Amino acid sequence: MQLDVDILDISSTLRRASAAAAEVTLPLFRSGTAVHNKKSHDFDPVTEADRNAEHAIRAVIADAFPGHAIIGEEHADKHSDSAYSWIIDPIDGTRAFISGLPVWGTLIGVAHEGELFAGLMSQPFIGETFIGLPGKSVYQRDGITTALRTSSVQSLDQARLFTTTPQLFQGLQRDKFNALEQAVMLPRYGCDCYAYCLLAAGHVDLVVEPRLNIYDIAALVPIIREAGGVVTTFNGDAPDKGGDIIAAATPELHAAAMAIMRDG
Amino acid sequence: MQLDVDILDISSTLRRASAAAAEVTLPLFRSGTAVHNKKSHDFDPVTEADRNAEHAIRAVIADAFPGHAIIGEEHADKHSDSAYSWIIDPIDGTRAFISGLPVWGTLIGVAHEGELFAGLMSQPFIGETFIGLPGKSVYQRDGITTALRTSSVQSLDQARLFTTTPQLFQGLQRDKFNALEQAVMLPRYGCDCYAYCLLAAGHVDLVVEPRLNIYDIAALVPIIREAGGVVTTFNGDAPDKGGDIIAAATPELHAAAMAIMRDG
Repeated sequence: MQLDVDILDISSTLRRASAAAAEVTLPLFRSGTAVHNKKSHDFDPVTEADRNAEHAIRAVIADAFPGHAIIGEEHADKHSDSAYSWIIDPIDGTRAFISGLPVWGTLIGVAHEGELFAGLMSQPFIGETFIGLPGKSVYQRDGITTALRTSSVQSLDQARLFTTTPQLFQGLQRDKFNALEQAVMLPRYGCDCYAYCLLAAGHVDLVVEPRLNIYDIAALVPIIREAGGVVTTFNGDAPDKGGDIIAAATPELHAAAMAIMRDG
Repeated sequence: MQLDVDILDISSTLRRASAAAAEVTLPLFRSGTAVHNKKSHDFDPVTEADRNAEHAIRAVIADAFPGHAIIGEEHADKHSDSAYSWIIDPIDGTRAFISGLPVWGTLIGVAHEGELFAGLMSQPFIGETFIGLPGKSVYQRDGITTALRTSSVQSLDQARLFTTTPQLFQGLQRDKFNALEQAVMLPRYGCDCYAYCLLAAGHVDLVVEPRLNIYDIAALVPIIREAGGVVTTFNGDAPDKGGDIIAAATPELHAAAMAIMRDG
């Protein structure tokens, strides 16, 4: 990938955009904010925080890179002829957000011609930031920066597996997921983006989730890859557009999980 | 309940004991600590942190109240003729602990003749403490203390329900739990003690879990009750010895959940 932007500008814009989002989200977290339903059927909460935080993020990006495209969950896409696109989810884990649980995150990814090369996850209540840029993936808290590195776990029977909830898997895919869950050392539910960041940090070994949207995963791909992890769809394709996603600490563990989850 | 101890001494001992535990747990959290299995069959991790933290807590209590009984998960019970007993779980949520997820907690409860009257939950990585004492339940972070108050949710269809995992329910109980899960607004898995504290803080409305040990729930009972919540077994009995537990934000919500979960 040949980039004609300065990575320092990308990094600085990611940080300023997430700081702008935090100014919106933090005062509303644990505040008893009203919950709105996106759809009439399912419970899919979107809070005031979600919409306003995306607005704040878009303003920072548009100011720094006026020509770039922006794809977000809450507002209409901003199209562009630019090779660069920013993919944002202001609050990934809205269910955690409305339950007062600080494992939601603000996600911002950056792609060049559809290929992800930079991403940030911010959990502002705890004060944590995970950032992936070409050549490095780092964790920041309390002004201290440490390198992220995935674990060395290669076999399923030693793996800590996370998924949001097994109920997202249906039919044959549910049977396969049950088999995967039986094969691992420790399965755990309910963390959204936070689980992928713990994987990048070496505390979780495997995250498997079906039917992710592009903005659920875009920011996380560079964080995981630059920490040494492997992230693809269940069939081994690029995760850059979302879909059924496997993220693993090592190539060996990724292959073992994919052998169970892949189609056919 | 007639207490012949000073509540300020109880409160101060709870805080000092949890601070001593944090000195042990925090350096080992996200450190890649070895995991030990308690049983050969199941995955039931006990870390070095767990054992050493209980040791540190016991030392503080024994120093402040030498005659009191102490019941803990990791070490043998200390029996006594005293009417007072301290019930401790140094790391509730060891699975979260070994996955790097900061929703575990240090739990310390205090009972007089078997009746719980004080309790503390500490999450030292985030820097949060929840404390229940006769007449008040409070939250502390960054030197700021705020009163805890449960939500006003009275009906299941407006309730946010937490449980560690539905797989802990078996047979008929699982069917009942599935019915409860269908009836609520938002079910969520995987939080152990943290869910009960979010209930006391008004962000979660209902927590339902089977077969808790006394040290899983003892510290949380005073925190929930003094915040306005109701906590009993599935059949409405006192929760002071553990068992199948329902905690709810309001008496009405508690009755609605118990109508589904109770025996017979």
